[in-house]
This record gives sequence, C-alpha cells and structure tokens, in this order.
Amino acid sequence: MADAFADSLKFDDRGLIPAVAQDAATGEVLMVAWMNREALERSVATGEAHYWSRSRGELWHKGGSSGHVQRIVEMRADCDADTLLLRVEQTGGACHEGYRSCFFRRRAPDGSVEIDGERVFDPKDVYRA
Amino acid sequence: MADAFADSLKFDDRGLIPAVAQDAATGEVLMVAWMNREALERSVATGEAHYWSRSRGELWHKGGSSGHVQRIVEMRADCDADTLLLRVEQTGGACHEGYRSCFFRRRAPDGSVEIDGERVFDPKDVYRA
Repeated sequence: MADAFADSLKFDDRGLIPAVAQDAATGEVLMVAWMNREALERSVATGEAHYWSRSRGELWHKGGSSGHVQRIVEMRADCDADTLLLRVEQTGGACHEGYRSCFFRRRAPDGSVEIDGERVFDPKDVYRA
Repeated sequence: MADAFADSLKFDDRGLIPAVAQDAATGEVLMVAWMNREALERSVATGEAHYWSRSRGELWHKGGSSGHVQRIVEMRADCDADTLLLRVEQTGGACHEGYRSCFFRRRAPDGSVEIDGERVFDPKDVYRA
C-alpha cells in the first residue's frame, strides 16, 4: 500500500503502535489498543478499526464477533509519529465488559477505585460460549 | 503510598503504563505518554501530570520548563488496568511543537499527511537554548 501516512509511522520493536479510539461525536475516549502495519492497512481498506491482539497474537477486527464495530471517521498521528488517534463511530459499546468506554474505573480522592461508566450491553448476551 | 488504584495497575515489563491526556473541558485528546509507578505517585501527590521520558530515561514533570502544566481533574484506568486516562486542565499547549494537541497530523483520504491543529505558541519562544 502506498501510503505516506502509514510510511511516516514509527512502529515499536514488536512492530506495534498504540491507537487511541475516541468517539467522534461525543469526544469520549473509548479504548486504547495496538496496531501493526497489517491492522492499519485493513483499517484503511475497510474503514473499520482492526487491531493486533497481543494476548491472542492475531489480527482482530473490532466488533467482528460482537457487532460492536468502529467506523473510522478520521485517523491522526502525534508529533512523534508513534501513537495513533482514531475518531470513530462506535456501534454499541467499546468494552467487552459491556461499557460504552473501557475507562470506567476512576481513581477516587482517597485512592480507591470507583466504577463510573455507561453500561450499554450485557456481555452474557453478546459473547456466547 | 497506599493506593488501591495504583496497586490495581498492570505496568509492562519495563515498569511502564501508557497514559492518554485529554482536555477535561473540550474532550480533545492532547497527547499520550508513559508513566512508571514513581511518575504516577508524583502526579497524585502534586495534582500535576508527571511522566517517564523513555528518550531521556528520567522522570518528567510535564510543563516543568515550559510552564505548560497539566492539572489533573480525574484519573481513570481501563478494563484491563493497563492504560491510564488523565482528564486535565492544560495550560498553553501540550505539544512541544507549539500545538494545543500533539495529534495535528491527519491522514487525508489519499493517504497523505495533512497538518490540522491549533498552534498556541512558538516553540522558539518557549524552549531557549
């Protein structure tokens, strides 16, 4: 793929780059995942976010099984070209635990963890055995 | 520091965790940097974002030299506890190139790189030799 944007990116020594997914409409930060060059190319080609799953060691079409896809509205890189920002239209929820955003754990002033997030689906209904 | 939030985090094999800094007022994603446990503790203790500079190999008080500090409004972790989200009040610009956000490089539909960002200061005026 001839792509000056992709060619400008600095992938790390594992061939990966972190990608922040942000709701294009609300600005909510939904999740952070990792892409390799192939995931980036698949994302560009399909218009839907693809990542590299470090735990499974495979290309991952976000929402491919749950239907909770991310349509990419725009893609940005930072000044060092070592981080991506995807502004997306998120179907359903980004988080496999059923929340709209993965960032539902907030640090309370006393250092404890509070749950603060919009739960948009029940994982049991989406991920069947 | 007794801190259930900090204790819940999964630092990587270098002892680092990525942190997304987001403008608490506008929702703009400003930058992504890395923290170690000490940077997190300094951030909590001072209320201003501290990171670990991988290039310099040292603790880094964001804005310590430029004055462009980030006052932390809230701190969140994601479902896997391996990424942080800081909602901040950003003084000046987050980017050392003078932009409000580091994410000023946008991928155009033809794959080229467009510059799209608000320049809020001239780096020459801030970082003197």
